[in-house]
Amino acid sequence: MKARITVTLKNGVLDPQGKAIEAALGSFGLGGIGGVRQGKVFDIELHGSDKDAAEATLRQACDKLLANTVVEDYAIEIA
Amino acid sequence: MKARITVTLKNGVLDPQGKAIEAALGSFGLGGIGGVRQGKVFDIELHGSDKDAAEATLRQACDKLLANTVVEDYAIEIA
Repeated sequence: MKARITVTLKNGVLDPQGKAIEAALGSFGLGGIGGVRQGKVFDIELHGSDKDAAEATLRQACDKLLANTVVEDYAIEIA
Repeated sequence: MKARITVTLKNGVLDPQGKAIEAALGSFGLGGIGGVRQGKVFDIELHGSDKDAAEATLRQACDKLLANTVVEDYAIEIA
């Protein structure tokens, strides 16, 4: 089973890396960009075929290691 | 208009960060994980409503700045 976890900064949390990317895109002459927010993605291969168990495992993984839930949100998609 | 760009390592490219995450998850007692690959995500706010123009701009952004196309693939989703 494959899963994708996307970790993004919560709304309202400053994202200096995103701002730097936005400025860099502007300096490359790419217009029309109103804002950039940067995040992380994890593609995870799971053994077994129990989706509920997989989601519980991934939720624990996010809470313990992959996301800082004080300032970040995460989304889990299981394929 | 909002867009999401996902940048992931190409298949076959070593991902030591993913391996480290996999080992860390194991040491937290989370079983059933067969592999982890790590990537980046960019949430981009665009002015205007021309999807084709937006995709062309984002493709340039990926090729010039956001992805290293030698070792990384990118996917653009426009909402």
